[in-house]
Formats: sequence, C-alpha cells, structure tokens
Amino acid sequence: MEGYQLPATQVLARFKDGSLTVEEYARSLLSRIQQRDATVKAWAYLDPEYVIKQAKALDQMPAEQRGPLHGVAVAVKDVIYTKGNKSLHKRVCCAYCCLPKCAWADMPTQFNSPIYEVHAPKLDAASVAILRQAGALLLGKTTTTEFAATTVGPKTSNPHDPTRTPGGSSSGSGAAVGDFQATLGVGTQTGGSTIRPGSFNGIYAFKPTWNSISREGQKIYALLFDTLGLYARSVDDLELLADIFALHDDAPPPEAPFRVQGARFAVLKTMVWPEVGAGTAAAMDKAAALLRAHGAEVEEIELPPEFDDMPHYHRVVLHAEGRVSFLPEYRTAADKLHGFLVGHVENEHNYTRAEQLRAWDSMAALRPKMDSIAAGYEAIITPSVPDEAPEGLQSTGSASFCSIWTGLHTPTVNVPGFKGENGLPIGLTLVAPRYHDRHLLAVSKAVGEIFEAEGGWNRNSSLGV
Amino acid sequence: MEGYQLPATQVLARFKDGSLTVEEYARSLLSRIQQRDATVKAWAYLDPEYVIKQAKALDQMPAEQRGPLHGVAVAVKDVIYTKGNKSLHKRVCCAYCCLPKCAWADMPTQFNSPIYEVHAPKLDAASVAILRQAGALLLGKTTTTEFAATTVGPKTSNPHDPTRTPGGSSSGSGAAVGDFQATLGVGTQTGGSTIRPGSFNGIYAFKPTWNSISREGQKIYALLFDTLGLYARSVDDLELLADIFALHDDAPPPEAPFRVQGARFAVLKTMVWPEVGAGTAAAMDKAAALLRAHGAEVEEIELPPEFDDMPHYHRVVLHAEGRVSFLPEYRTAADKLHGFLVGHVENEHNYTRAEQLRAWDSMAALRPKMDSIAAGYEAIITPSVPDEAPEGLQSTGSASFCSIWTGLHTPTVNVPGFKGENGLPIGLTLVAPRYHDRHLLAVSKAVGEIFEAEGGWNRNSSLGV
Repeated sequence: MEGYQLPATQVLARFKDGSLTVEEYARSLLSRIQQRDATVKAWAYLDPEYVIKQAKALDQMPAEQRGPLHGVAVAVKDVIYTKGNKSLHKRVCCAYCCLPKCAWADMPTQFNSPIYEVHAPKLDAASVAILRQAGALLLGKTTTTEFAATTVGPKTSNPHDPTRTPGGSSSGSGAAVGDFQATLGVGTQTGGSTIRPGSFNGIYAFKPTWNSISREGQKIYALLFDTLGLYARSVDDLELLADIFALHDDAPPPEAPFRVQGARFAVLKTMVWPEVGAGTAAAMDKAAALLRAHGAEVEEIELPPEFDDMPHYHRVVLHAEGRVSFLPEYRTAADKLHGFLVGHVENEHNYTRAEQLRAWDSMAALRPKMDSIAAGYEAIITPSVPDEAPEGLQSTGSASFCSIWTGLHTPTVNVPGFKGENGLPIGLTLVAPRYHDRHLLAVSKAVGEIFEAEGGWNRNSSLGV
Repeated sequence: MEGYQLPATQVLARFKDGSLTVEEYARSLLSRIQQRDATVKAWAYLDPEYVIKQAKALDQMPAEQRGPLHGVAVAVKDVIYTKGNKSLHKRVCCAYCCLPKCAWADMPTQFNSPIYEVHAPKLDAASVAILRQAGALLLGKTTTTEFAATTVGPKTSNPHDPTRTPGGSSSGSGAAVGDFQATLGVGTQTGGSTIRPGSFNGIYAFKPTWNSISREGQKIYALLFDTLGLYARSVDDLELLADIFALHDDAPPPEAPFRVQGARFAVLKTMVWPEVGAGTAAAMDKAAALLRAHGAEVEEIELPPEFDDMPHYHRVVLHAEGRVSFLPEYRTAADKLHGFLVGHVENEHNYTRAEQLRAWDSMAALRPKMDSIAAGYEAIITPSVPDEAPEGLQSTGSASFCSIWTGLHTPTVNVPGFKGENGLPIGLTLVAPRYHDRHLLAVSKAVGEIFEAEGGWNRNSSLGV
C-alpha cells in the first residue's frame, strides 16, 4: 500500500519501525492530490513546499521528542485559524517586504468570503495548536461554504461522483479524507456540517460533545451549536484524535473491545423522517437487520412529543445567534455577505427575544431528557442525511437529521457502509448521551466493522484505490 | 472642562459643533495619561503616535462619513484582539524588516501571559471591528489578570487610592475610565470581571445579556459565562454603546424617561450575603431608603432554595470549561501557565462529567425562573462586591456577588454613588431579565442620578478633577 492509502495508526507504526519517512508519506499524499485535485478541488490553500518543509523537520526530530500524531497529515477546514510557517515568512518578508506576497507566506484563513480575501492571521486555533504540538503534518486548508454558515457549495466535488456535492459546510475536509488526499480532517458543525459530508464521502465523521474541544480560533456562527468535527477513514484513527484532544468519559476505558453480540440498540426515525429518501430508509432497515443478525437487540423508539419542536428551536437560535455573529461583517461590508446571513443580522423573520429564549431554554431542558433516553442503549441509530449526495454542486444538501443532535449537544458518529440507488455512500449516525464520546467511538468501531463489511458499499472499489 | 473630562455624548457634540477636534481631545487624554500613568499603570500597550495618527485621520474624515462614535476614545482590555495600524506596520516593516520591532507595529494582544509575550495577531475582535467601524478612537490595550482567568492583580492601582486594587480581571479598563484616562472602556466578565472593577473604580459597568454582543476574538475561558463588558462614567454613554452594538429589547424604546417615582424595586441579598462587608451592607440600606424617599416601592426578596447551589454550579462549570480552554497552553507551555489554570486542565477537584452536566443543566433551568422573578420589578438591586476595594494589588477581590448573574445570563449594571469606610467608591448592581438590556439601562440612569447625588461619594472630588 502506498503512504497516502494508510490510516493514521499504520502511518505511525511505519514511521516508528523506519519503513516510511514523513517526507515519503507527504510526497505520496501530494502526488495523490496532484492527480485528483483538478476533479475534487478540496483545497482552499495548499503549498507543497511548506508541506515538504514540515515533513523534513519532522523527520529530523529525535524519537523522544516526537508527539502522538507525529507526521500524520491533517486537512483543516478554512474557518479555523492556522498561522503557517514563521521562518518561511521571514525569508519572503525580507526579500519582498512591500509586495502583497509578503502576507501570503502565512497560511491564510478566508472563510470562503470575499471580505477575507487577504487574511492571514498569525494565529493557530486551539485545535490546530493541539494538533501541531502532537506532531501533526498540516497539509493545508480545505474548502467550506461561506463562513460555514450557508448551504451554497464551494467548487469542491464528491470524489465518488464529481457531478455531485461532497456536502458541506466541511466540504473540503470531507472530500479530502474521503478521497485519500488527507489521512485525517478537521471540520465544524453548526447544523449538519461535519456529519453530512461524512455520509456523502463515505467516511467516519465524529461530532464530539459540545465544547469538549476548544473552539477558540474557529469562526463563530452560533455559539450554542458550533462544534469542532473530526474525519477519518477508521474509528481507530478517531480514537487517536480523541486521545490528543483529551476526551474522557466518566467511565474508565473498557478493558475488552465492545461486542455487538448481546448489545442493545435503538433505531430512531425522528420527527424529520418525512424528509427521508429511499437510500437512507433502506440503510436504516439493513442496519437493524445486520445488528440483529450479529446478535444485538434492536428496538425501534420514538421521541416524546416535546422533542417535536427541536428543528424549530434550532432554526430560531441559529438565526438569533447569527444576528450577533455577523454584525461586524454586515457593518463593514454587507454587500459582500450572503443574503442568508444579511437576513440573520436584519432578523428577517422578526423572531422576538421571547421566542429566542423559549427556544434556548426548551433545548436546554431537553438535553438531560435526551441523555436519559440514550442511556438506555449502547447507541441510538438514526439517519445522517436524507439520502446519498444529491446532484450538482450548488447546494450542499439538508442538515435536518443532524441539527437535532447539534442542538442537543450529544456526541454523534457517522458510520459509513451503505449505498444509495446511484452507488454513492450512505452512512448512519450513532448517538450517545453527552460526554459518552469514548463509549460512542468504541461502539462505532464494532458497528462500523459490520456495516462496512456487509452494508453493500466499498470505499476502495468506489475510488479504484 | 478639558477634553479628557467629558463624557462621550458631550465629546460628540463638541466634535459636531466644531468646538473640539479629535486631535485636541486625544492630546488632552494623552496628557492626562502621562500625568497619571506612573501611579495608575492601567495600560498594557499604548502608542501615543498611533493615537494621534488615528485622531488626525478622523479629523480629516468628511462629516457624512463619520460614525456614531466618531472620535470617542475607547480603552480595550488586553484579552481582545486588535489589529493596529496597517500603514504604520508597512513603514516600520520596510525600514527594519528583520528586527523584532517589526512585529510590534501592530497592537499586541498578550493576555498578561508570558506565553504570548510576542503576539500581535492581525485581527480585530468582533467588538473592536464594530467600534472601529463606528468611528471609535482606539487608545490602546488595558491590563488584565492572566487570561482574565485568575485573581492575581496586574501592576494596576486603584485611581482613588493607589495602595488598593482596581479590581479585576478588567483592571486596566476599569481604572482608565475611572481615572478619566479613557472616555469608554471594554472589558469582559466570566465571574465578576466587569462589575467588580466598576464598583471599585466608581463607574458604570454594564454586563449585557450573555452573547448579545459577539465574543469573536475574545480569549475563551468559559464559553457559557464569558461576556463582553462595557464601562463609562454615565449611563448615556452606555446607551450610545448599546446602540452601536445593536442591543434591542422586545419592547420598543420608551417615549419618556424612566421615573423612580411609583416604580417597584426588589432588594436581594442573595445566598452569598455572609461575605458582605460594612460598606456594601450600608450601601444596600441607603439605596433602599433613597429609592423609597423618591417615591419608589422597595421590597426585600429572597431567592427560592433551588438557587442556593448557584455558586457551586458556577465553580464547577468554570473549572470544566477552563479544562478545555487552556489545554493548548498547557500542552505547549504548562510551566508558564498559572497554577490555578493548570489545576483546571488537570481537573484538580476531580469533577465528573455528571457533576458538570448537573451544574450546566441546573443553571439552564434556573435562568427562565430568574427571568420570571426579575420581571416582577423594574430592577433587582443587589451587591456588586463585598465592600470597597481591598488593600494591596495582589488580589483583585471576590467575584461572589457577580458570578451568580454571569451564570444566569441576565444583564447587570453597576451603579456607583456610595462609599466605604475609607472613602472609596462602592456601587450596587441592578439586574433585569435576559434581553431587557435597554430597559435596565433606562432604569439605571434614573437610579444612578439619585445614588450619585445622594449616596455620599463624589467622583470628581475623589480625584481632584
């Protein structure tokens, strides 16, 4: 297998036994990117010279100084600050000080917004600082919808069918990891922006419990919803990231791997089930059948009626918080701000403060109730998206099935393995109570092995890799 | 009156009628600062040349382009990003490109942390961008406790008695506005960091409803508590800021000024009353007596017992969120991080996730209950601090009386007017339900006129201004 194809766990093992250097691995990824970029267009910024420079520095690092993510390539969504390379900056700066190029020596953060076309803050987001300190190789910045806040797709295509969207708003990170252009990816979710591209690109997507990873340096849309999201092609790789980000449940890590045999799952269609398509409906049936066939108990559940207004609450809070978040851009450059976000600032739906508080407080009251329901099962299985990725790159698709969980702050994992009528990947979401992130990953690993083996979709054959 | 003594409303009027230029006003403030800085030490960064440069540019701006805060001087707490002056940067950069000074042409943001000694992000926080677009004259950065997260005082003294603390963590903004070194100030509050310096420095301090002003670009301590705070020496000036930050209640602005005569107030000692000192206890009595004398109905109330655990909930969430927020600094430079914050990351009290969620959810449930209680009165009157500013600069004092309201997300205003046994200012806090910010300001104006006239403390005579 070539370097670009390996999961992070194997990349690390090869670095350790000396059978692969970070530079060889980086060049393998860059070659994959070069081959595929004209089709997939996942990158908002990528400087091969900077990637190789980092790789060489990592190779020269003494073994005892190497971090737990030493040399593993990560794609970072372009709504998250990255400071780039200081020494590179100095060199360029001294040679061309007054040229605009000077500012570009740092890795930019542009939010897919014309307001931030020239914008290279000399800052790492908290998540990026933690990844860098752990030894990650920062590949570059990946495409996003404007401020991760609209559903208008960037230029990026779905690697499994370039006529279709990779989803959004974490379009580039989802597509890059799905297409073997990056080993790991970082995204964000305010509605369905991490889980949806996870499903559309056939990868594992993990939205941890709200605010269990610092959001410092990640563009704010809705404080109460915005969550850092993580991408990988295996749960073991997500476990690695969970270690680095210090995610801990109250329960100590189990000594033995989770087993599906004898476990209890819930299947939940939710109040937005009328939006489901044939692909996801079939995946839900197949998932239940597969788990039962592997000895699990699977119970179909419904949420109490008080959850029915969750989509409405999510929408009201999203608009109310967006009204605050985009005021600076509205004041300084309203003509360059998408109409949807102008509508937030102008409160186009005339939501009152009372409605906003009712939504805020009602969601807050539902969170512990959801935890109690979810605690009755190893995980709840529910749709990630209505169906496989829709055609066209204009719209990144619907967040309906995800926004409930974003609002409820529960951890969710998109587990791939199924496919739609056109052969594109479909994943399902596993849900656990808040701060049961590690438990959920352990369950997702066992469930994912079954879904990926028997669900009907195969990543490698889909991509010819 | 000299320029530095004027409130913002009068500064604006003088600019408009041409009797004062921004440059004259800026020079008056700089002269006040020069005279007082050796004693008060409110500034973490101040470049007089940059101030004058801004002032001249503002004076040259055509009348029709001027913003609603045109030329008014604002002090910004040094946990909030400021990008400084691009053209100044270019000039210095071209002349001394490889010298460390190059980085300093931008206004730094250092959080009073040795980890960020050289740190000048080319970014304005959302609040600073809004102020700048409104025409504000950015004076400089003001001192803070480390990351606005400890109670260890910076070098700053209380302008009314340099042997005493100005409070914290917004030490510099509180002291600068209190000492007439800045007309307006921006701070933050996670426990009592805006209101406490307000009381200690004898000024109006306004903590708006949580997340009613964007916190983008403001260092995160506890997402659920951190709130941008505002300082002025008059409520009219706070109203000006409330307009600029687009704070709106559901109720339309009243046509007539609020009148104390016939109004209904509550007086609330809270569950932390045992911490009260003689000064605040006397101020509470006097406040009730004064309001009654002016025809108000004043009722002493108690909170239901379910509020008793609020201080505990606040502490648990503070530690739990700090555990996440300071992980990057802990990973990269734990030896340079205050032990209190190391304790957060290491979860020194072994708070479980279950305890954390119980605190989170209990506070969430109490918020609408508090709104209902507060809705029965024009405002609740409650202590800001235990007493006047304590001696010494080591500790910035107790946040006990404030953290309840930070956790409950209600708007609060510190109204000055009283004094302690040593003649230092004491303020009281007025509270209203969430998103009744404009109502609370209107009430604070009428109440402040009474407290300032008859409470016993006088700002100008205290400072000899």
